[in-house]
Amino acid sequence: MENSDLDFTIERLGECRFSFPQQGGRFTDDGERILYDTQVDVIRRMFREGKEPPSMEVAGPREKIFFDPSSLACGIVTCGGLCPGLNDVIRAVVLSLSHHYGVKKIYGFRYGYEGLVQKYGHNPVDLTPETVSGINKAGGTILGSSRGPQDPVEILKTLEDLRIGILFAVGGDGTLRGAQKIAQEAARRGQKISVIGIPKTIDNDISYIQTTFGFETAVSEARRATYAAHSEARGARNGIGLVKLMGRDSGFIAAFSVLVGSEVNFCLVPEVPFGLEGFLQALRKRLEQKAHAVIVLAEGAGQDLTAQTGECDCSGNIKYGDIGIFLRDNIRDYFKGIGMEINLKYIDPSYMIRSLPANPHDSAFCLVLGQCAVHAGMSGRTNMVVGFWNHLFTHVPISLAVSKRKRIDPEGELWNSVVASTGQPRNMR
Amino acid sequence: MENSDLDFTIERLGECRFSFPQQGGRFTDDGERILYDTQVDVIRRMFREGKEPPSMEVAGPREKIFFDPSSLACGIVTCGGLCPGLNDVIRAVVLSLSHHYGVKKIYGFRYGYEGLVQKYGHNPVDLTPETVSGINKAGGTILGSSRGPQDPVEILKTLEDLRIGILFAVGGDGTLRGAQKIAQEAARRGQKISVIGIPKTIDNDISYIQTTFGFETAVSEARRATYAAHSEARGARNGIGLVKLMGRDSGFIAAFSVLVGSEVNFCLVPEVPFGLEGFLQALRKRLEQKAHAVIVLAEGAGQDLTAQTGECDCSGNIKYGDIGIFLRDNIRDYFKGIGMEINLKYIDPSYMIRSLPANPHDSAFCLVLGQCAVHAGMSGRTNMVVGFWNHLFTHVPISLAVSKRKRIDPEGELWNSVVASTGQPRNMR
Amino acid sequence: MENSDLDFTIERLGECRFSFPQQGGRFTDDGERILYDTQVDVIRRMFREGKEPPSMEVAGPREKIFFDPSSLACGIVTCGGLCPGLNDVIRAVVLSLSHHYGVKKIYGFRYGYEGLVQKYGHNPVDLTPETVSGINKAGGTILGSSRGPQDPVEILKTLEDLRIGILFAVGGDGTLRGAQKIAQEAARRGQKISVIGIPKTIDNDISYIQTTFGFETAVSEARRATYAAHSEARGARNGIGLVKLMGRDSGFIAAFSVLVGSEVNFCLVPEVPFGLEGFLQALRKRLEQKAHAVIVLAEGAGQDLTAQTGECDCSGNIKYGDIGIFLRDNIRDYFKGIGMEINLKYIDPSYMIRSLPANPHDSAFCLVLGQCAVHAGMSGRTNMVVGFWNHLFTHVPISLAVSKRKRIDPEGELWNSVVASTGQPRNMR
Amino acid sequence: MENSDLDFTIERLGECRFSFPQQGGRFTDDGERILYDTQVDVIRRMFREGKEPPSMEVAGPREKIFFDPSSLACGIVTCGGLCPGLNDVIRAVVLSLSHHYGVKKIYGFRYGYEGLVQKYGHNPVDLTPETVSGINKAGGTILGSSRGPQDPVEILKTLEDLRIGILFAVGGDGTLRGAQKIAQEAARRGQKISVIGIPKTIDNDISYIQTTFGFETAVSEARRATYAAHSEARGARNGIGLVKLMGRDSGFIAAFSVLVGSEVNFCLVPEVPFGLEGFLQALRKRLEQKAHAVIVLAEGAGQDLTAQTGECDCSGNIKYGDIGIFLRDNIRDYFKGIGMEINLKYIDPSYMIRSLPANPHDSAFCLVLGQCAVHAGMSGRTNMVVGFWNHLFTHVPISLAVSKRKRIDPEGELWNSVVASTGQPRNMR
Repeated sequence: MENSDLDFTIERLGECRFSFPQQGGRFTDDGERILYDTQVDVIRRMFREGKEPPSMEVAGPREKIFFDPSSLACGIVTCGGLCPGLNDVIRAVVLSLSHHYGVKKIYGFRYGYEGLVQKYGHNPVDLTPETVSGINKAGGTILGSSRGPQDPVEILKTLEDLRIGILFAVGGDGTLRGAQKIAQEAARRGQKISVIGIPKTIDNDISYIQTTFGFETAVSEARRATYAAHSEARGARNGIGLVKLMGRDSGFIAAFSVLVGSEVNFCLVPEVPFGLEGFLQALRKRLEQKAHAVIVLAEGAGQDLTAQTGECDCSGNIKYGDIGIFLRDNIRDYFKGIGMEINLKYIDPSYMIRSLPANPHDSAFCLVLGQCAVHAGMSGRTNMVVGFWNHLFTHVPISLAVSKRKRIDPEGELWNSVVASTGQPRNMR
Repeated sequence: MENSDLDFTIERLGECRFSFPQQGGRFTDDGERILYDTQVDVIRRMFREGKEPPSMEVAGPREKIFFDPSSLACGIVTCGGLCPGLNDVIRAVVLSLSHHYGVKKIYGFRYGYEGLVQKYGHNPVDLTPETVSGINKAGGTILGSSRGPQDPVEILKTLEDLRIGILFAVGGDGTLRGAQKIAQEAARRGQKISVIGIPKTIDNDISYIQTTFGFETAVSEARRATYAAHSEARGARNGIGLVKLMGRDSGFIAAFSVLVGSEVNFCLVPEVPFGLEGFLQALRKRLEQKAHAVIVLAEGAGQDLTAQTGECDCSGNIKYGDIGIFLRDNIRDYFKGIGMEINLKYIDPSYMIRSLPANPHDSAFCLVLGQCAVHAGMSGRTNMVVGFWNHLFTHVPISLAVSKRKRIDPEGELWNSVVASTGQPRNMR
Repeated sequence: MENSDLDFTIERLGECRFSFPQQGGRFTDDGERILYDTQVDVIRRMFREGKEPPSMEVAGPREKIFFDPSSLACGIVTCGGLCPGLNDVIRAVVLSLSHHYGVKKIYGFRYGYEGLVQKYGHNPVDLTPETVSGINKAGGTILGSSRGPQDPVEILKTLEDLRIGILFAVGGDGTLRGAQKIAQEAARRGQKISVIGIPKTIDNDISYIQTTFGFETAVSEARRATYAAHSEARGARNGIGLVKLMGRDSGFIAAFSVLVGSEVNFCLVPEVPFGLEGFLQALRKRLEQKAHAVIVLAEGAGQDLTAQTGECDCSGNIKYGDIGIFLRDNIRDYFKGIGMEINLKYIDPSYMIRSLPANPHDSAFCLVLGQCAVHAGMSGRTNMVVGFWNHLFTHVPISLAVSKRKRIDPEGELWNSVVASTGQPRNMR
Repeated sequence: MENSDLDFTIERLGECRFSFPQQGGRFTDDGERILYDTQVDVIRRMFREGKEPPSMEVAGPREKIFFDPSSLACGIVTCGGLCPGLNDVIRAVVLSLSHHYGVKKIYGFRYGYEGLVQKYGHNPVDLTPETVSGINKAGGTILGSSRGPQDPVEILKTLEDLRIGILFAVGGDGTLRGAQKIAQEAARRGQKISVIGIPKTIDNDISYIQTTFGFETAVSEARRATYAAHSEARGARNGIGLVKLMGRDSGFIAAFSVLVGSEVNFCLVPEVPFGLEGFLQALRKRLEQKAHAVIVLAEGAGQDLTAQTGECDCSGNIKYGDIGIFLRDNIRDYFKGIGMEINLKYIDPSYMIRSLPANPHDSAFCLVLGQCAVHAGMSGRTNMVVGFWNHLFTHVPISLAVSKRKRIDPEGELWNSVVASTGQPRNMR
């Protein structure tokens, strides 16, 4: 897909006939858009060639809104794995619906999309400013979560039964695809239901969105694991600290965990393939020179090395063998084979990271993100997610957001900085 | 100044005749520029009208460089008040000069610009990858600092005596003006000395730069103070927690400290004037309803209320009376006057915030910021600062960076979110 | 008072006719006592001389109890300044009363002893396991607090009206004296009301009690302030970081803040008088040698230097002039006088420390402390506090607990370690 | 062994003919001893029966010392697994030897006892106040460590070659047995070498010592793991968080991790056996009632359930199967068998805990512990460890310290509090 073909057009349910009930502050104009690409050469050429460069709608409160707040019911659901900030998002949505618009009825659906399917018997909970007070100080999600899709027809039935006008779906790739199906099914039926996705990916790997909540908290906390790995590695002759971090398809957490500290000697990510032999020889060289080494790997690194298990998890992701265990065992075997005594400690902090409350930055980010989602839904937009681009919150069609993964560029500045910081060979194939 | 008049042209010392000594990774092309304004309507109109929209040079390593690394000496100096990340920046500059370019001689000047003036007798220290190892884990600056300008002629003399090719000056407004004078004096003498500013402002108030290091750490830690204020306020009948935060001209720290928590009831910033009476009545109303209140104020708020002291600090900033003490006393007097017993606790955490090490985000930011400063200097650019704009590091002429302050827009989204979170009256004049 | 005269006899309301309702675990025998003094020479001599060495009752659950849990109402009140762990104690008392004994009615009195006096109109709140769930994660006290005594007759009236059998009073010296008066008034009237004190002193200065809750949290957090002072002091020529910590009569927090770090060069406590001139000369010497200095002082240090203000606070403590401000100004004047430029930063973190939640150690301590208070009250003991002595929770008569302050021994091991760590002159008179 | 038979006599190398070189402060008298048992009934009965109750020497500086500091060389070695505070202890020993006594030569042996055996080729490092400056801020040990014993004859050879008078051995059970053998071999040869053990056990399971360094830090940090387990458990239907903590023979860390929070529903420790069936049924009941559960287990719990592997680690500890993995798999199988869908997350934070720097409490504890070790060695004591008993540092013969493990009393107050907090059945056999 060429940049010039990117279509950021957002679906709308219909004409906005109601007024934003609050006073003060400026509204975002419906035509306010920012450029997707900001390279001056690119933009100049497109305009000269008479092309319109791709641009995104700016998020924010609209003067005219689609739904009548006084009679509106809304729902919110959290899906997939834990991520710092889930409770912040729930709270922000509830506070904005209540305080900005005066919405009275907000349902919290339990345990992901299961909570929207009646046969599971999970009754929704009522959410109010009181029930969400202080929840942002706790990790996890007060609504619970589950993985995997549910039948959009059954979900629509629940939404209709509860007369819900806006559904906020917080989740990753799979969740957003599910949200898309719900929006499409609603459109097929002529139901005026808005489905607003709030992108949740601790890996920060959703396209057309520069930052997702929880990522920065994850990077901050990953430093504890690399710190431990470093202490352990230094504490023994030929000590090796091996840390597996999150990152199925994209190694942003692993890469940034290098930049925030100074302890990591090898960083392995999905975007930069490596050979087992090449890696082991580089590791051996490092030990011979420095007598200790710290390795950070993203869980999706080296997937060509570990056999595919042939299984999928409930969200439909292909399961690979565990690269952490694979590397741990191969390192031990290799050094045993060459008669070099090592002392390897394997650390897998993922659950301890993703279950944390958001750090202050992510917390503030979630607050405005949730507000923008509410403004988008109230304005009758649907089948979209709230993104963040060049310092502004934006609207992105779900179809674009799930069209491909955002990944580290092995030739770009981020990876350059990683290679410079670790001192690892650029090529370990 | 109209946007269309903004001149982001960067001065250069001359032709680049040397090659970047490192291998691997991509170079930044000298012509790579990004748009300053990204609103599609604005840019479209300018191109249609035949105007060139303002744009900034993108920072990064250049294939061709101006200085010969093998014979180059560099210097670095930190000025003004403490800010989280100073040691990260020093370390990043030293590591990049050493590892990327092979520069052998790096001087660290002690105690700000004083260290560049021989009469003070502060000998510079040699900086190497070994001496900067681990310094990023400590707050403060290993070089020490001081306020106030020094004679550019004397500074040039020191630079010439030590045959320094690039001077990195880390500091705020005043420091950058000083750097500008050094660059101008060098140019006047025909000296090929590059002066690269690294913007340091914990208040995040430098124009044409979206983010400065230390700001996020400051916001995170300010949460401790508002937390304490809230505990104290809740712990007594009509308890009031009053927190004074940094922010002479711009209230970004105070505003974000509202968004990261949920405890603040009044936020007072320089950009939004208030009347003493209006504020006190709103506070009284709050106490009557909730029996406790938390107030956060930026040190520069309400400067029309406190008398100017007529003094300046060494950096030339006008000194105002202390708004924190002023408000504390006026609140006590007011409630005493109306016979309402209150319990006020005043908290001033500024030194405890600015003296911290950078948080992981700021630490990674400083690492790349320092690298970009080195790339800029090596390419022969001068009289500029390294900025950050729309997710990319950029080059900004010092003249632009110091031309005005970045401030909160009282009609914009940030202040809207603050007002919504605190529930304070939009107008307390 | 000679040790041999110490009378640790605890008052009791009467015969225990009810049984502890829970099963499992061992009971504490009513006669279980531990020696107050454990020096073998002292104890041997006393027994040889036919004296009974002083000993304390061991706290813990008794097989037989005085009150009938099924019909018992209890009350809890928190008084004085904030201290980490207050909410933990409230929670522990409520959980133990509910889960161990099945008590149904527990009142939380608002805003200290005021909440027990009807004219203030503060209605008590009902406390249950649900209402105290998670409160230990927050600093402050959910009940609020106030300073100062109230008329014991009016308090008794409230207790009688609500048919309260046990009152738990959490507070310091003044609070415990108040509790003593309530117990005495109840006894005078023949009311079978147990008054159990739970000692709260962040300064850890209550006699016959080795450890009080919140102290360790305070010491831990004080490290942040000395860290900041050190960063600031190092960051400027002749930089001085001056930190004022809690400690009216005893300097334990200041002394331990030296031992937990390595940044402090002068520690000033109430127990070790110093002369202004002697201190300033030592400081000058330090600056001449090292060009920076960190000073920690307890708020009660050097009270002979600052004039008594002639005022008392509500709790009846004599108010002294602020030694922090006094020293700050005198240091500035002194060095100005001798023409030596310094850079002093003054840090007062007290509110930010005392308002924190308890750290894990204090949290566990509070849990068992609260349980022991409940066991003591249920057994019909009164006019006592729960103490901690030689690794065990104990019972101490209020009269003993308030008879004198625990203070640092200037010849003992703690102060030796402080002097060794700071390198300060032992004598600065 | 009856208490009355406990022999706390400390071996000495000979007469003390030198004077403590420092001034100020009080000395500890050589005859100062404290009672081991402090129950007044027990002590009274022993004295009446003419028996001398067991007592311990109090640690501290002696007026007369055995070694001549001016000609003394000392060594320090750290053995076994990491523990928070190792660097604090190294620093405290070096600072006390240098500053209190003026010892000039201090060797740091690398990688445990290996560093004392010449064939390994690990050269010792010189330790000075400068080299240990700030090391206490880092986790791990700057000396490195290794497991397992080495030949005492070869170690003695190294000590003699380097003319070492005092060896400080920091480590656990195995290390202390090794130290005992070195002391015995030295005595056999008539060498006046003092061997002082500094007990390191993160599990806090050494007998006759109430507190060991690192334990409190470990408990504090374990809270992060139970927090994560709780977030994960709440975040899914029938969510189970399973945390494996340190504790081979004693479950103190697991037990205290219950008391510091409020999230744990099952605590499994070595001292309280349980049956797999009993546990699983209790877990099922919990899930049926609350839909989530948090389990904390000490690594040595349920050793009768997991097969002995027949192996030993280098320190001679019997290796058991991994109870964490065993329970994880058995829980999954059980619920699969009964058709109940669960969602289990397994968390093993041990390396992330033990590699941390000491918390402030442990840091201060290590400082005085190291000083006491130095005082003991300088006084010519040997074959002993420094202990902590009833608020005082003491001397304990190594033979006693390693004679048995300290364990949780299943009928005592600690376990009572754990059972009350978790709500778990007292008996799950």
